[in-house]
Amino acid sequence: MSRQLVLTALPGLPSIQPGDDLAGLIRQGLARADLKLVTGDVLVIAQKIISKAEGRQCLLSSVQPSARADQLANETGKDPRLVELILRESRQVLRWRPGVLIVEHRLGFVCANAGIDHSNVEGEEDSVLLLPKDPDASAQAMRKALTDADGPAPGILIIDSHGRAWRMGTVGVAIGLAGLPGLLDLRGTPDLYGRKLEVTQVGLADELAAAGSLLLGQAGEGTPVVHVRGLPYPLRDASLGELIRPESEDLFR
Amino acid sequence: MSRQLVLTALPGLPSIQPGDDLAGLIRQGLARADLKLVTGDVLVIAQKIISKAEGRQCLLSSVQPSARADQLANETGKDPRLVELILRESRQVLRWRPGVLIVEHRLGFVCANAGIDHSNVEGEEDSVLLLPKDPDASAQAMRKALTDADGPAPGILIIDSHGRAWRMGTVGVAIGLAGLPGLLDLRGTPDLYGRKLEVTQVGLADELAAAGSLLLGQAGEGTPVVHVRGLPYPLRDASLGELIRPESEDLFR
Repeated sequence: MSRQLVLTALPGLPSIQPGDDLAGLIRQGLARADLKLVTGDVLVIAQKIISKAEGRQCLLSSVQPSARADQLANETGKDPRLVELILRESRQVLRWRPGVLIVEHRLGFVCANAGIDHSNVEGEEDSVLLLPKDPDASAQAMRKALTDADGPAPGILIIDSHGRAWRMGTVGVAIGLAGLPGLLDLRGTPDLYGRKLEVTQVGLADELAAAGSLLLGQAGEGTPVVHVRGLPYPLRDASLGELIRPESEDLFR
Repeated sequence: MSRQLVLTALPGLPSIQPGDDLAGLIRQGLARADLKLVTGDVLVIAQKIISKAEGRQCLLSSVQPSARADQLANETGKDPRLVELILRESRQVLRWRPGVLIVEHRLGFVCANAGIDHSNVEGEEDSVLLLPKDPDASAQAMRKALTDADGPAPGILIIDSHGRAWRMGTVGVAIGLAGLPGLLDLRGTPDLYGRKLEVTQVGLADELAAAGSLLLGQAGEGTPVVHVRGLPYPLRDASLGELIRPESEDLFR
């Protein structure tokens, strides 16, 4: 038998509103796709619908920019109120240039504009969407809500799209996880010829995030949840922290 | 119908030797997995087997280190002959510390140790494996060799595992491609609520590389080729250059 990894975009999820029962809607999506969870299954979920269900929309008109936000807004050509929100969501600003601020997010990862999203927010013209407050906790809660008394607990991966140093294009990356390894540690594993691999910690959750991202509707196609079956590694509990490189070990900050 | 992406690791590929007919072996693997290529199919291939088939092994004992290699070897604790090969394969060294040199590879991308691999090289103890001379050309040749007179041409993606700034763990990334978009340009596409997406160039080939990497045997499992069906975007011709961020636009070099 050939080893297969099968990703399925759950059909028919409606546009998500604050307070929606996302787990219930995902259960309906799984049923619609004729999928019953088995051990080892993972659900990849776009952060956007988690943020929306958690009410992380914010009106720019309600934001009072600080002097620092005004200054950075001036240097980047961005809305000072948006810059203020970016600063509030960040630990530090690493770089900026017209159109973009690269920050260390309060959640630990480095990304552009603190992951604050202007598009796909329904309603008021000046509404933006912040990342979930605690994506690991959101993932844990989703995992619990999708686990039946007698059923297996799925791995849950909440993803966003990040730009990268050195390479063009955004890729899906993990921003929260539950019941799924962040890293796969192959150090010390003998290779085909019996030597030990030197440096092999695989960013498993990020590879899976990128894979899921291939099926997530980028341009309003409305498939924000992808079911994954066939990951050839055992699931275990973990948190996003595994994937964050400590600043002291980072040669590129 | 739910949209699906199906990745299949081709079974039964032997250990590759210099001069092997890799396309022929991949055809056999496809047949073994009961797969007949259809339009839109992509093959993800680990660079290691391309390099081996192309004879990119190199004996460290044949290498005479330069003074610069000796110095960097001293500062990183690496074999001076290996450092010499890394320098020969690179345009510039960006950072170094014990155990690692981060370089701009002659192929344009930034990676550790110029992608030179110590593990999984058969034979002499001091043999290392360089990246393919021209992975885009290798991909083009593979594409041609796998296209029948009356059949569809598969997309070909040659991948390696790279570490990253800011995040722990390696992920699969594209180092050569043919008949497959590097980037997917969604700028100007209206979102769900009719606004235009601001910054969306998706690193499609890199996302696919990461996805394929999930099934590639990391620790000698011997499945260096993955067949992909169901990519929800049309194939087109492209080269790796699409994915390389020009140094002038890179805030992190």
